[in-house]
Amino acid sequence: MVPQLTVDDTPTAEPTARDQVLDAARAARDAQPRLAVLTRARKDAVLLAMADALTGRSAKIVAANAEDLAAADAAGMDPGLRDRLVLDAERIVSIAQQLRDAAALPDPVGDVVRGSVLANGLQLREVRVPFGVVGMIYEARPNVTVDAAGLALKSGNAIVLRGGSAARHSNEAIIAVLREVLLEQELPDDLIVGIDAHGREGADALMGARGLVDVLIPRGGAGLIRRVVERSTVPVIETGTGTTHVFVDASADLEQAVPIVLNAKTQRVGVCNALETLLVHADAAGTALPVLAAALVGAGVTLHVDDRSRAILDAVAATVDPAAVVDAVPEDWDLEYLSLDLSVRVVEDLDAALAHIRAHSSGHTESILTRDLAASQRFVQEVDSAVVMVNASTRFSDGGEFGFGAEIGISTQKLHARGPMGLPELTSTKWIVIGQGHVRP
Amino acid sequence: MVPQLTVDDTPTAEPTARDQVLDAARAARDAQPRLAVLTRARKDAVLLAMADALTGRSAKIVAANAEDLAAADAAGMDPGLRDRLVLDAERIVSIAQQLRDAAALPDPVGDVVRGSVLANGLQLREVRVPFGVVGMIYEARPNVTVDAAGLALKSGNAIVLRGGSAARHSNEAIIAVLREVLLEQELPDDLIVGIDAHGREGADALMGARGLVDVLIPRGGAGLIRRVVERSTVPVIETGTGTTHVFVDASADLEQAVPIVLNAKTQRVGVCNALETLLVHADAAGTALPVLAAALVGAGVTLHVDDRSRAILDAVAATVDPAAVVDAVPEDWDLEYLSLDLSVRVVEDLDAALAHIRAHSSGHTESILTRDLAASQRFVQEVDSAVVMVNASTRFSDGGEFGFGAEIGISTQKLHARGPMGLPELTSTKWIVIGQGHVRP
Repeated sequence: MVPQLTVDDTPTAEPTARDQVLDAARAARDAQPRLAVLTRARKDAVLLAMADALTGRSAKIVAANAEDLAAADAAGMDPGLRDRLVLDAERIVSIAQQLRDAAALPDPVGDVVRGSVLANGLQLREVRVPFGVVGMIYEARPNVTVDAAGLALKSGNAIVLRGGSAARHSNEAIIAVLREVLLEQELPDDLIVGIDAHGREGADALMGARGLVDVLIPRGGAGLIRRVVERSTVPVIETGTGTTHVFVDASADLEQAVPIVLNAKTQRVGVCNALETLLVHADAAGTALPVLAAALVGAGVTLHVDDRSRAILDAVAATVDPAAVVDAVPEDWDLEYLSLDLSVRVVEDLDAALAHIRAHSSGHTESILTRDLAASQRFVQEVDSAVVMVNASTRFSDGGEFGFGAEIGISTQKLHARGPMGLPELTSTKWIVIGQGHVRP
Repeated sequence: MVPQLTVDDTPTAEPTARDQVLDAARAARDAQPRLAVLTRARKDAVLLAMADALTGRSAKIVAANAEDLAAADAAGMDPGLRDRLVLDAERIVSIAQQLRDAAALPDPVGDVVRGSVLANGLQLREVRVPFGVVGMIYEARPNVTVDAAGLALKSGNAIVLRGGSAARHSNEAIIAVLREVLLEQELPDDLIVGIDAHGREGADALMGARGLVDVLIPRGGAGLIRRVVERSTVPVIETGTGTTHVFVDASADLEQAVPIVLNAKTQRVGVCNALETLLVHADAAGTALPVLAAALVGAGVTLHVDDRSRAILDAVAATVDPAAVVDAVPEDWDLEYLSLDLSVRVVEDLDAALAHIRAHSSGHTESILTRDLAASQRFVQEVDSAVVMVNASTRFSDGGEFGFGAEIGISTQKLHARGPMGLPELTSTKWIVIGQGHVRP
């Protein structure tokens, strides 16, 4: 599509990182039409062959991973990050399983979204088609390399992968295996290309490859996502950041509220659908807050509280350890802690809760705990977030929980996809119009 | 949504054009929740009141339009552009009708897109919701001001309008009437804001208002659209450019092909779904091209031909005026003429036609004329355009023709919306999850 092609492809004597990334994206683009016309059966066979190859050739991958781990240890990498980087034979079996799972999912390509026959007899169908080339920028988690490549392949898309530099050797070994299988299956290996070797400059080139890459999906922390959103001229699907709220309404059932709040905050901490701010209706705060706080602090949570919460909790220092209660600073209301910390605020009423959420939510997931039908209806209608819940833990905001079978990420933007994204969100559509000599009057 | 807010809103002594535009966008954003919860009946009543007000207060609008016309005449504006700028009482009646038409359309807000009950009993629904704030950047056509405002209101969105500076007085008069009606209807007038007064700097500010404006839709020529796509940090829906192809296959029915090609090229010339390049299968070219060329040249079309077409047409100079046949230059294959010009090329076969389209199409609309089922199937599957047709004129690629009732534009991008866009394409969705105390195991 020439008019969209705004990249400069003048050859130079020494190819720069930028040139090499644009060449890689162009190769992926040229290869993709071969994939677009493949049947589901053929795509599933390729995915299963890839799964077999990953486990069968895992020694090479583990060896490459050892290089990354040695560098990580030398650099004193955070233990949590290091754990995500580790690959052993067992983990590779579970990563290969992701490809088998992708094979088992329905193929979105070709699905008829809408269709009709117009008054003049023209037959109209809107059908799902692959995007073309998907770019993925993510952090040092080699399992994402396999997951993203598998879902892209299943949805008919070529993919350009840019993982974290700390996982470079692991990613390159994995991508080499996947590309070998593509060739063995008589498909172009450029359907899956990795650009980790080209560093930061390569990532910037990918963000500028408008016309070569159809959509760019960042997966990772808030900083990574913001950088991609701000720099990319390729359309981006923004994922992930969750400053998630639970509002305990005046009529909330406290026996339900305690396990829901505890589950939302502590069932898993470092994830985007974990709870970050608890709002409590003033009419319920006197009874509810001490019980909620005791349960949370008992589970190891530090509470960052406003003045009204402080006044209530100071009176129950016997059941809520004062050491776990700190005064909130203004920044707390906008934080995604991803840790055993929770902002807590007493709000005057539903309107105040809605106003707080409007001002501070990242638009990911919010939940109201209530027995009041009208309050639940207003909350559901007026909260402008990807997922709005009633009497449920925010941890259910997840593609797997929603039954999608696979999750590309959770979109916090409003264009194209919102909330958990499954395979259909990796497709576009086209309109097919069948006539019998039709001309427009 | 604080984390997305990347605009600098530090107050300064003298507000710049940029400050004023950001303030206007913020005001629209603050007003929109009032609109989001309005019933369809209330929105339709507002639209009908606006239609009445436009005709009832048309004298003011015509007077403002006279100022724009005087400036246009002084600047020697192109007659075609000037004609689009003119407003008289009759045209205002027809513009007001657009609002009545919008009132008659179904309201997309609240439509349930998907829904299910999960195994654990959670009730899941994906429902349509407004984007929030829509930005529209367009050329000097005051009717677009009304059309865009009406469709935004119907779909629950506030709108920031940036029309062409040549229509500034007309747009301001129209927007003043629409805002008066909003106040009369006890709604915030900032649901519709115009920023024509702030010039190019204002348009740039709108493109940078990420976090305040949810989506930006440029409507107009290729230059305008490209500028917005390249500069905007707000997500853009790219519309319009159509380097549209018809491929006359070896088996095409010539009695159908001539009227279709003529209709596609000449029924209306300055529109994005008009034909720009004709490809003819080599096996059919000897008989088909002379007949097609005679019909096209007879209708006043100038043909920009490749060497093989030239050889065929030189032999039939008696029926095809040689003065209307010029040699194509490489640029012709990528041009959207929007005039009585047509690029013509003989291609060896279907593969060559597909390769030409892949290299030169803007991804808007392509049509194959054929009696060969397999050829039609390959064309439909392999052409990667928003609309792909068989035996029909490209002029049907239109929201009105598709039965949408209204058209926001024709998207040539793959994200969010592709092809003709109706009211549902001005919405996002959100997920509603209803539990009864659900926690994640």
